[in-house]
Amino acid sequence: MTDLNGSRPSGRAADQLRAVKITKHFTKHAEGSVLIEFGDTQVICTASVEEKVPPFLRGQGQGWVTAEYGMLPRSTGTRMRREASAGKQGGRTQEIQRLIGRSLRAAVDLTRLGERTIHIDCDVIQADGGTRTASITGGFVALSIAIEHLIERGLLAENPIIQQVASISVGVYQGTPVLDLDYAEDSNAETDMNLVMTDKGTFIEVQGTAEAAPYSMDELQAMLELGRKGVAELTEIQRQALAE
Amino acid sequence: MTDLNGSRPSGRAADQLRAVKITKHFTKHAEGSVLIEFGDTQVICTASVEEKVPPFLRGQGQGWVTAEYGMLPRSTGTRMRREASAGKQGGRTQEIQRLIGRSLRAAVDLTRLGERTIHIDCDVIQADGGTRTASITGGFVALSIAIEHLIERGLLAENPIIQQVASISVGVYQGTPVLDLDYAEDSNAETDMNLVMTDKGTFIEVQGTAEAAPYSMDELQAMLELGRKGVAELTEIQRQALAE
Amino acid sequence: MTDLNGSRPSGRAADQLRAVKITKHFTKHAEGSVLIEFGDTQVICTASVEEKVPPFLRGQGQGWVTAEYGMLPRSTGTRMRREASAGKQGGRTQEIQRLIGRSLRAAVDLTRLGERTIHIDCDVIQADGGTRTASITGGFVALSIAIEHLIERGLLAENPIIQQVASISVGVYQGTPVLDLDYAEDSNAETDMNLVMTDKGTFIEVQGTAEAAPYSMDELQAMLELGRKGVAELTEIQRQALAE
Amino acid sequence: MTDLNGSRPSGRAADQLRAVKITKHFTKHAEGSVLIEFGDTQVICTASVEEKVPPFLRGQGQGWVTAEYGMLPRSTGTRMRREASAGKQGGRTQEIQRLIGRSLRAAVDLTRLGERTIHIDCDVIQADGGTRTASITGGFVALSIAIEHLIERGLLAENPIIQQVASISVGVYQGTPVLDLDYAEDSNAETDMNLVMTDKGTFIEVQGTAEAAPYSMDELQAMLELGRKGVAELTEIQRQALAE
Amino acid sequence: MTDLNGSRPSGRAADQLRAVKITKHFTKHAEGSVLIEFGDTQVICTASVEEKVPPFLRGQGQGWVTAEYGMLPRSTGTRMRREASAGKQGGRTQEIQRLIGRSLRAAVDLTRLGERTIHIDCDVIQADGGTRTASITGGFVALSIAIEHLIERGLLAENPIIQQVASISVGVYQGTPVLDLDYAEDSNAETDMNLVMTDKGTFIEVQGTAEAAPYSMDELQAMLELGRKGVAELTEIQRQALAE
Amino acid sequence: MTDLNGSRPSGRAADQLRAVKITKHFTKHAEGSVLIEFGDTQVICTASVEEKVPPFLRGQGQGWVTAEYGMLPRSTGTRMRREASAGKQGGRTQEIQRLIGRSLRAAVDLTRLGERTIHIDCDVIQADGGTRTASITGGFVALSIAIEHLIERGLLAENPIIQQVASISVGVYQGTPVLDLDYAEDSNAETDMNLVMTDKGTFIEVQGTAEAAPYSMDELQAMLELGRKGVAELTEIQRQALAE
Repeated sequence: MTDLNGSRPSGRAADQLRAVKITKHFTKHAEGSVLIEFGDTQVICTASVEEKVPPFLRGQGQGWVTAEYGMLPRSTGTRMRREASAGKQGGRTQEIQRLIGRSLRAAVDLTRLGERTIHIDCDVIQADGGTRTASITGGFVALSIAIEHLIERGLLAENPIIQQVASISVGVYQGTPVLDLDYAEDSNAETDMNLVMTDKGTFIEVQGTAEAAPYSMDELQAMLELGRKGVAELTEIQRQALAE
Repeated sequence: MTDLNGSRPSGRAADQLRAVKITKHFTKHAEGSVLIEFGDTQVICTASVEEKVPPFLRGQGQGWVTAEYGMLPRSTGTRMRREASAGKQGGRTQEIQRLIGRSLRAAVDLTRLGERTIHIDCDVIQADGGTRTASITGGFVALSIAIEHLIERGLLAENPIIQQVASISVGVYQGTPVLDLDYAEDSNAETDMNLVMTDKGTFIEVQGTAEAAPYSMDELQAMLELGRKGVAELTEIQRQALAE
Repeated sequence: MTDLNGSRPSGRAADQLRAVKITKHFTKHAEGSVLIEFGDTQVICTASVEEKVPPFLRGQGQGWVTAEYGMLPRSTGTRMRREASAGKQGGRTQEIQRLIGRSLRAAVDLTRLGERTIHIDCDVIQADGGTRTASITGGFVALSIAIEHLIERGLLAENPIIQQVASISVGVYQGTPVLDLDYAEDSNAETDMNLVMTDKGTFIEVQGTAEAAPYSMDELQAMLELGRKGVAELTEIQRQALAE
Repeated sequence: MTDLNGSRPSGRAADQLRAVKITKHFTKHAEGSVLIEFGDTQVICTASVEEKVPPFLRGQGQGWVTAEYGMLPRSTGTRMRREASAGKQGGRTQEIQRLIGRSLRAAVDLTRLGERTIHIDCDVIQADGGTRTASITGGFVALSIAIEHLIERGLLAENPIIQQVASISVGVYQGTPVLDLDYAEDSNAETDMNLVMTDKGTFIEVQGTAEAAPYSMDELQAMLELGRKGVAELTEIQRQALAE
Repeated sequence: MTDLNGSRPSGRAADQLRAVKITKHFTKHAEGSVLIEFGDTQVICTASVEEKVPPFLRGQGQGWVTAEYGMLPRSTGTRMRREASAGKQGGRTQEIQRLIGRSLRAAVDLTRLGERTIHIDCDVIQADGGTRTASITGGFVALSIAIEHLIERGLLAENPIIQQVASISVGVYQGTPVLDLDYAEDSNAETDMNLVMTDKGTFIEVQGTAEAAPYSMDELQAMLELGRKGVAELTEIQRQALAE
Repeated sequence: MTDLNGSRPSGRAADQLRAVKITKHFTKHAEGSVLIEFGDTQVICTASVEEKVPPFLRGQGQGWVTAEYGMLPRSTGTRMRREASAGKQGGRTQEIQRLIGRSLRAAVDLTRLGERTIHIDCDVIQADGGTRTASITGGFVALSIAIEHLIERGLLAENPIIQQVASISVGVYQGTPVLDLDYAEDSNAETDMNLVMTDKGTFIEVQGTAEAAPYSMDELQAMLELGRKGVAELTEIQRQALAE
């Protein structure tokens, strides 16, 4: 991968992640809880176990994983209107929380989870680009901690997690494909793509959007390659955090 | 591309589109209006011109293209609850209409459109899979007709359309990558991907979701290739419809 | 009935209906489905069978017929705001769908329908006046087809329909009572009255509203007479459509 | 008119109104305010003057009259859910307040009212049938008082009221047409019709609904005749109240 | 207590209540119903018995008392927007109805009430300050009448009321602590405090808000003393009303 | 003050605050930002400056301070429903944010603030009783930092803060008045009172609610005295935090 010769606002190499930090047990009530940081982006991810499933799954002998996402009103440079006060979640919020839920369900064999729901709440304390990828990556760790908790308490006999799931953004910034866009890059990128992948290098979601101009097959391939590298690093960071 | 030996429920070849039909001027009031059919999927797309822009664009000398999407309650096999009656648009509806809007804005040089908004309404009369790809493909034609109407009436001096935009789904069905999934395939696919592309073969959106299992890089590449072929055929059908 | 000597915008005689056309099986999923046209007014009416009744009727051994009504945003000359997006159905929509539901319940012996609900959805594709009367008239046909479907499948032993129900508008336009107002007349009428009647000439609903000026008993009587004639023609058209 | 030989639950003759009482200045803040009683039905009607018009009328040199309707939760035999708490006005409420607004606008030459709005609020304190007819009849008096108030304060040079408006219900109860149904009759009537008429005997609204069975032309004519008599009595009561 | 030498707008002494009047059985449907007047403030309080409890109390062998509060749109000097039309209850309304509910639950031994709910509806017909204190004071009487009704009908063996509850406002107006503020005082007071107390002189709620400036401990003590006197008078008035 | 001999669940003396910690600049975007901890209760308070005022204040030459409050869904022992997803803020939330706003407005001379709004957002990360008192106490510090920021940037010539504002809870727990209730105490207290006071020992708000039983004048006095002591300590902690 070509170095941008310092042209990224952060001075990072094109294929370089921001500093990623996972603090486990960040809050005390949830069965699983982490603070995940992708540079200045900070998200609290909690996993809450509820011993029942939604109506559409009752009596089918399987569990469910679902997610909600929110931003504190002043997690951003300009204060956003509080969604609870506006009376509804915006389209962007709904898209993101549906994406988190789908992604994390792919990590779990729901039939082995039993008839219970795990709610993942991802709340952005501070935003600097990449809040959805941090949410998925941290949400996986919170989910894993909650499942360990169920195993420790004897509520689960075997671990229903079948693979690790992590997510990263890639994009084309000033003509060059780059990994893990921060806000300064994200708001000026020609293209923005979010990848959700497993620790086996397979794909769960590919969502690529041309912002300024359509992108070519070559650019698409370069972005996929960068993302594959980034997710490999993130799944290693997840393993280390869980092993501590 | 391997033939499925008739194993698609419809008997189509793996790389074969359904019959696509575009009926122009389907309703009389809108500046642009088509009925688009992808097999049994039928969507009315209208383009309505409004001579003002949303508040966030006022005074900036540019126009806007936005979209809304809906399904008639019994466009589907089981009646769905009417969203107007439920009091809100669901997350899926919002995702789709945001996708249609983003995709069609990529077709237009908004500064050349002038300070006006074109509203694209995509209403599904009958659903059989692929309603969002039909909406984008038909929406482009409705948009083009509305712009011709503005040119004919002297309200636009030059055509602001910079490229054609069309969309198709691809997926992995029973282990084989296939083009343009109908409902029977869509509801059983391992993977479902929607591509929005230009007539130049570049990408506007790639949205691929693993449904049953993560997909490999090889499957991803095969799907991208199929989609490229399908969009090329759709842009040809759009050209013929507009030329009539 | 005095002829207006061509003074109706459409050139019709005062007591002349627009061309009325009923296309059965317009969409494929619903148990009953028609497209009804009153001139340029086009409404899709579907009847969906649900094998349960609303809470207030449970265990009472009777069925229910209910209706919802909607207009596509650009079914009208100027685009209307989509009700699903606005977050609620307007007062006019609620009035109309309550009227359709009441009217069609009068066609059916609900105790003979069994503990099931038939949902009538009337969606206006193109509006040119008289959308509620077209909805009732077409809704009756969709309802009848759905009931035939239940009989054919052995779910109903006898037909619970006790009478035909159809609806027409009458009004006073430029001082003359006229039948079946189109939009050009409706928006300028002194008085607008909607009649819902049976094939036996009895009344289900009379709703007459003075728009520009109160109307006299003589005008009321003339409108009732015109409506009686119009409904007689509509019930004949319904019979022919059902017999085909 | 045939006497029912005492068979009405109230013992009234078929063509007999309940005791109607209008108490002016029932509350102190509103420009016009009355308590109107139709027997045990009690409605507070206030008229509030606002010195501006809704957006769709701005700059057109005319005024507006609009109405809202509500029922106290325990105005009825069984407590109803409070609409403010439910988060929306039901379909019945909206129908009624639209009817009241249309009816009272017919009483006023809006161009002579000037660019102001008169809001009529009709709040049912106690319900025993006929709340909408009491609301219209009392609303007219509150409106008249508010207009007198404007004239007294020199804000209006001439009275814009062009005719009196009053309303009454008629129905078919146990086979006999009767005037002014109370709750005991209303809930068992075969047919229920609300008439809004002027002091000149002309019609503003006719709304007749078959409840148990369609009604014949003869029954319709008998109800219209009864209603005409009832409204004539109500307009006389309005005149007396305003003259005091 | 210092006399204000007539400086209260109403001419009352600093420790003088307005004329308080309680009219029992003001409306006929509710199990308990009063009109309570604190001078020009008029509130209809009804108590409605429902033979079930909210979900969170089911099967616990106890009852519930809850309250809702509303103001007629023109109960005030300027018309307020109707909350049912606005689609939600404002923050002030919710605060007040939560206060009324908490206060009246303190009057009742809920386990002796049995598994039923008493709904208290407080609807302000005319407002002149002190609507929440009038609501609580009148609500207690309506509640008591409903309970007597239950006893008379044999549905309750013993009276679950354990103490009387009444409420009054106190404040600092032009530097002097005063009792029972009317609107002219309330809108200009430095401090406004609402007390809910029992007939035993104990406290249920103390809610004191500095409006113009913080208040001292001395002012707080003076207000508490005034309130104690006012509540003692109100509980006597309640006893007389219930004894009649 | 009597020691409880260790009977408080936390082992604190009756008049002892929890450890209170204020971390300034907790997030980077807001003009003022703190994390405040009252023991295990953790609240992020941000102050956001907006250079305009709400419509009701436009053109009056004064500023505004307003507050919003929220809890992360799993800040509590059992996950709460997210208010943004529920579609509205509950009554408790609205009460608390109105209280925070009123309290902090008392700290500021709004005319000296200029025509701008300061939004205080209080988001509870972890709850263990006393979230509203922590919000007010921390909100004052965030507000002060934002005002220092305005002064540093030359947007304000003089400091509009006129007094410090802090808040603490007091209650009666197992018969003894105690200061700063944590969740274990709060959920079992006989009485719960929140005091908002200034650094001068005057009162902004007193809100005392009998939970299990009415409280006597003696208990009220003891709680007021405890609160006075607690607020004095809190204002000292605020001063130290601001001085650092």
